[in-house]
Amino acid sequence: MRMIGAICVVALLSGAIPAMAQDHEGSKPRARALGVLFDGTPGALNAITDVAGVTVGHTTLISGEGKLQVGNGPVRTGVTAILPRGKDSMSNPVFAGWFSQNGNGEMTGTTWVEKSGFLEGPVMITNTHSVGVVRDAVIQWRVARQEPDPTGYWWSLPVVAETWDGWLNDINGFHVKPEHVFHAIDSAAAGPVPEGSVGGGTGMICNEFKGGIGTASRKVAEKPGAYSVGVLVQCNYGLRPNLRIAGVPVGVEIPEYPAYGGKFSQDERGSIIVVVATDAPLVAHQLQRLARRVSLGLGRMGSLSGNGSGDIFIAFSTANSGAASSQGLTQITMLPNDRMDPVLAGTVQATEEAIVNAMVAAETMTGADDHKVIALPHDKLRAVLRKYNRLAQ
Amino acid sequence: MRMIGAICVVALLSGAIPAMAQDHEGSKPRARALGVLFDGTPGALNAITDVAGVTVGHTTLISGEGKLQVGNGPVRTGVTAILPRGKDSMSNPVFAGWFSQNGNGEMTGTTWVEKSGFLEGPVMITNTHSVGVVRDAVIQWRVARQEPDPTGYWWSLPVVAETWDGWLNDINGFHVKPEHVFHAIDSAAAGPVPEGSVGGGTGMICNEFKGGIGTASRKVAEKPGAYSVGVLVQCNYGLRPNLRIAGVPVGVEIPEYPAYGGKFSQDERGSIIVVVATDAPLVAHQLQRLARRVSLGLGRMGSLSGNGSGDIFIAFSTANSGAASSQGLTQITMLPNDRMDPVLAGTVQATEEAIVNAMVAAETMTGADDHKVIALPHDKLRAVLRKYNRLAQ
Amino acid sequence: MRMIGAICVVALLSGAIPAMAQDHEGSKPRARALGVLFDGTPGALNAITDVAGVTVGHTTLISGEGKLQVGNGPVRTGVTAILPRGKDSMSNPVFAGWFSQNGNGEMTGTTWVEKSGFLEGPVMITNTHSVGVVRDAVIQWRVARQEPDPTGYWWSLPVVAETWDGWLNDINGFHVKPEHVFHAIDSAAAGPVPEGSVGGGTGMICNEFKGGIGTASRKVAEKPGAYSVGVLVQCNYGLRPNLRIAGVPVGVEIPEYPAYGGKFSQDERGSIIVVVATDAPLVAHQLQRLARRVSLGLGRMGSLSGNGSGDIFIAFSTANSGAASSQGLTQITMLPNDRMDPVLAGTVQATEEAIVNAMVAAETMTGADDHKVIALPHDKLRAVLRKYNRLAQ
Amino acid sequence: MRMIGAICVVALLSGAIPAMAQDHEGSKPRARALGVLFDGTPGALNAITDVAGVTVGHTTLISGEGKLQVGNGPVRTGVTAILPRGKDSMSNPVFAGWFSQNGNGEMTGTTWVEKSGFLEGPVMITNTHSVGVVRDAVIQWRVARQEPDPTGYWWSLPVVAETWDGWLNDINGFHVKPEHVFHAIDSAAAGPVPEGSVGGGTGMICNEFKGGIGTASRKVAEKPGAYSVGVLVQCNYGLRPNLRIAGVPVGVEIPEYPAYGGKFSQDERGSIIVVVATDAPLVAHQLQRLARRVSLGLGRMGSLSGNGSGDIFIAFSTANSGAASSQGLTQITMLPNDRMDPVLAGTVQATEEAIVNAMVAAETMTGADDHKVIALPHDKLRAVLRKYNRLAQ
Repeated sequence: MRMIGAICVVALLSGAIPAMAQDHEGSKPRARALGVLFDGTPGALNAITDVAGVTVGHTTLISGEGKLQVGNGPVRTGVTAILPRGKDSMSNPVFAGWFSQNGNGEMTGTTWVEKSGFLEGPVMITNTHSVGVVRDAVIQWRVARQEPDPTGYWWSLPVVAETWDGWLNDINGFHVKPEHVFHAIDSAAAGPVPEGSVGGGTGMICNEFKGGIGTASRKVAEKPGAYSVGVLVQCNYGLRPNLRIAGVPVGVEIPEYPAYGGKFSQDERGSIIVVVATDAPLVAHQLQRLARRVSLGLGRMGSLSGNGSGDIFIAFSTANSGAASSQGLTQITMLPNDRMDPVLAGTVQATEEAIVNAMVAAETMTGADDHKVIALPHDKLRAVLRKYNRLAQ
Repeated sequence: MRMIGAICVVALLSGAIPAMAQDHEGSKPRARALGVLFDGTPGALNAITDVAGVTVGHTTLISGEGKLQVGNGPVRTGVTAILPRGKDSMSNPVFAGWFSQNGNGEMTGTTWVEKSGFLEGPVMITNTHSVGVVRDAVIQWRVARQEPDPTGYWWSLPVVAETWDGWLNDINGFHVKPEHVFHAIDSAAAGPVPEGSVGGGTGMICNEFKGGIGTASRKVAEKPGAYSVGVLVQCNYGLRPNLRIAGVPVGVEIPEYPAYGGKFSQDERGSIIVVVATDAPLVAHQLQRLARRVSLGLGRMGSLSGNGSGDIFIAFSTANSGAASSQGLTQITMLPNDRMDPVLAGTVQATEEAIVNAMVAAETMTGADDHKVIALPHDKLRAVLRKYNRLAQ
Repeated sequence: MRMIGAICVVALLSGAIPAMAQDHEGSKPRARALGVLFDGTPGALNAITDVAGVTVGHTTLISGEGKLQVGNGPVRTGVTAILPRGKDSMSNPVFAGWFSQNGNGEMTGTTWVEKSGFLEGPVMITNTHSVGVVRDAVIQWRVARQEPDPTGYWWSLPVVAETWDGWLNDINGFHVKPEHVFHAIDSAAAGPVPEGSVGGGTGMICNEFKGGIGTASRKVAEKPGAYSVGVLVQCNYGLRPNLRIAGVPVGVEIPEYPAYGGKFSQDERGSIIVVVATDAPLVAHQLQRLARRVSLGLGRMGSLSGNGSGDIFIAFSTANSGAASSQGLTQITMLPNDRMDPVLAGTVQATEEAIVNAMVAAETMTGADDHKVIALPHDKLRAVLRKYNRLAQ
Repeated sequence: MRMIGAICVVALLSGAIPAMAQDHEGSKPRARALGVLFDGTPGALNAITDVAGVTVGHTTLISGEGKLQVGNGPVRTGVTAILPRGKDSMSNPVFAGWFSQNGNGEMTGTTWVEKSGFLEGPVMITNTHSVGVVRDAVIQWRVARQEPDPTGYWWSLPVVAETWDGWLNDINGFHVKPEHVFHAIDSAAAGPVPEGSVGGGTGMICNEFKGGIGTASRKVAEKPGAYSVGVLVQCNYGLRPNLRIAGVPVGVEIPEYPAYGGKFSQDERGSIIVVVATDAPLVAHQLQRLARRVSLGLGRMGSLSGNGSGDIFIAFSTANSGAASSQGLTQITMLPNDRMDPVLAGTVQATEEAIVNAMVAAETMTGADDHKVIALPHDKLRAVLRKYNRLAQ
């Protein structure tokens, strides 16, 4: 069970991922630029990083070709880190809540998120069989940086989620290693977020097109202030015929080359992990509610949340810095329930757009056993939208 | 706080409601007949009553006009009863599960549904301020029929849900009385289900069009057998601009005459109660999962599940008659999780269609303080669907 | 289905209940005075009313004797109202959370408590078959006092819980009426709380002794301030052999005259509703956690939380007055999670004592069909505690 | 971060653990033999393995002494595996449910246990910072044994729980390795279960005495059949003054040598993981209820379930072999809710006894930084029980 050196080289070269991101920004249109219509007003980056303080890092592992040899590859996987407060995420927890629409998946750390009301540290996303190594590596990362309580009375319950990339990736080869986790955390940055086949999303499949990481955001006009809500998805769910984009039956109109080669029954094989960030001052129980709005965004896309799908969502607020302090009483600011509607709406809208962005960004990939998964063809997408009078401009 | 006699007369005359139903069937098209496109194959009635054994009864209370006088009307309200096993519903509970997408509402009896895994007796739906009278009246109905355990050691925890009709109805006049509850239960029948402004849905508003009761069903082809899933909604949710029908932005295209007269802020004021029935042999924990699929159907319609919305769903299976017996061990049949996908899909699809059916069936209504809520105009709906190339035929 | 006038007279005469309370205070010892040992330090009243602002009111309905005639009695029931902020409870909600240890019971309004994080209005407790009338009457009470939003855009989702008193009371006679609800709310007061067979607890049975209402409190020393936690129970649960008091197997030692006359199988027939109040500044998700500590107090008493038991708990904090305002942002104070332990401990301890107080206060009662339920005999209790070296002094 | 070879030798020598077990059985009394009184009738082994099919394996890692050097030790940790159906546990899932009394801990895999209703594979317990390695190693174990679906379309979501042993163990040295996981699974056996400082419980502390693994069982007489319920705990919770044994205030009576040396504030630092097994035919939603009864057993012990405690429980039933098959419809047998009381009672009783067994079995241990944690002194325990007239015989 060795790793092919080249993977690490590719992944850990500091230039690799920014280059990919640049490439993405430079030449590749996102869904909105292709003419897909969405509700609401996006932030400057139309990304989760529009919520100030949030940083995102990816480690992308791609190596090998041809027949699957467990332990040798091909490798099409990775890790994504979302840090709510960037470098301060470890010591300054954020209010958070989570929701499992359909639990055929894993998100560790949620029992304490639910009871404590806080998320401490990053949210990590990887493949299904690498959740463990990523979880422990987050602790190792902290231990190595001497962040734990010097008394030694300290423990950590990292949040790590996953989707399954076993169609393209040697998932049982366990190719994600602690250093890939460190890299994702250490390289997390503000600014544009690389999308598509990157990080944890590298080997993912969405509505039988190539899937992966996608993101979007909304400006939320609310009287007490102007807030943002940002969404990042690792999307791996769905069957082609159910896919709707902007309400249009895109999946029915583009039936060609469905993934999985008809090998399995027509059951949902995928999953989707969604991370919602906002700077609106929502507290724990409100963020539990926010996380539930992701289901409505999925509904717009035509998702059925099949039995095999792990549709698990987490939401956090970057407001109330210092709220988790245990010194004396904590003063916190709360957006009244009666004023939550714009944030709820922004979450639904940004979820919808982030999923489309993931499919639009991802490129056709060939992986294990020469399985090929095509990208959503941009020209056909535009043609279908035009047919239904839903192409912008 | 008296009731205008005519109301009771209208409601309790045995011919009244069947006539209304007949009228509905005879002359009024349902959504599908208008050319709205939906996924999946409906059952014979395209109603929750396609699930054998399920019966539905309505008591509709309409009387008075003009200025609201609390206690005197105008009255625009009612009660709907859904009996999972018809007359046997009291003595032969069904496996059930529930879900609260957004809990700004009431569904009594759910703590025991959740823990016991069973629903005993009917599901009742009424207005927000009449939940109590309906709840106790269900018990009275049983007591009067001598159904309780003759030892006297017996109690009942009825399931009663609600949405708010205070824009059209004198909701604080408490016009629903025990006899209206008895009538809804006693008159529950198989066959076509009256839709629109009937029963508990009488005074409801949906996406700022007239709302109310709607229903739909799906045939679920599944290898171990052929099952049905049926959905009944009491829909009262939503803001006009968010309304999508068949993926088309109908609400934006038909902005005229929004309800509530711009009196309130643009916050969600409504709610939706959804009852899902199936004859697929699902057990309690599977029905909890089924109930969560309603959110995906709501998502298709553009719902944001606003803070003010009570979006509460219950699902039951009519299979496994006798499963709640306390004599010895119970033999039950279970559909494997791996075979649930068609039932999950049917629930999403039937939810979507039932909501549109409710709006299509409801007619323009004027109620308290001469508030007028228009029906979804059939001709405009067709025109909009045609504009987006989504009109059938 | 008439009510015997004398009941109302007894119940509604303003002097009646205070007299009973005085009697209780004046001559009857509480558990602690009998020598039962408990952990922690009680507040001045050792009652839920030690939490400043909390008021409690009872309507007690006792009339008739002899054979049960449904609708005629005998009547042994009532209603209890707990108002978190006294008269301000309607307009100034409190942060709240709830928990269902075993859901064979009802607590209405909980879906919105859970999602909103707030409790608006009183917590009412009554018998199982009167939940509906009490619920709607709370709304009527508000309507009659013109408290609703003058725009008419207003609804209420009252919290009403219950336990079953059908062994002593004509529960299917539906003797609780709206005026009894109004009386309980209107008469709610600070100060000592009448315990035993009063209010909703009138006809209750606990560990096969006479049960009912009990209360206790703890002073919670916590560095950021000195807080109180108060508990009120309506206890109706348990089988005699399982009863432990102060860890001593009291139920086994006093096997005489178990309730229910051996008529039923040895299954749990009862329930317990527990209301936890604190002035510690806990927010919604923390109060959900607090509510779960009630189970640990029940565990100390030997409870098994049988299948037939409706063990449902609600916790609220009177801190953060005005937190539910929808004007602008809300500034709230939060006790850090790390400082919750004393409040958690106080809840467990006060739950234990409140249950014993209920049994100690209740007197032997004969009700429907001459069913007689004995009070926990004080002298024997002391003797048993002495036998196990657990009698104070 | 190397491992000291001797640890592995000790742990993996096949004779090591049986020897320890034998030693335990041979010479060391369990709680009941010491004269502690418990309710109910234990099974033949008074262990979780009284439930036919259940096997338990431990890997115990003990090496090094003196000052903590992160990565070098001292090591006082391990892994415990509970296999519901022994070797068939991977391919033949059991109905299961879980509950988090207080979530300051981790149990992976629970989102799918909750939604699917099944537990597939073992329940593993280890220290807080080794959950990840154990989780992935369970998958590796399956991959190595070629158990996955040969189509390659397969994933696994192992259930792994933890408590914190950082007072005695070099927890940040990450000494648990995949081979220790394989050993625990491979060595799992029926028969007596080693208790105390073994497996995942090696470095644990309970009520400030030495804690660890404990187990107990109850015969459950129930008309449809005779069932067993077995409990296994990894106990690490509690402060000394709160400890009650058989209702007696043992913690107050034996205040000597509390753990943690007064270094930290008097907050709960520990946790408890509880696994409940039964052969009673309970289905998923019933097992969720069963898991909640563990809290009542904890209550009997005086637990307050402090903020820092991860009190997480899982319950499964070995009945209904084959119920998770996805071939056609599944025929399952269900114990009626009305007949659950004996199983609920057995769970409370066995939880109480398993915790005491853990403390009785564990011996005084010195670990990292020469921290010493004393065993519960048997003679003093007996003396205290005698003082309160609660010593058997």
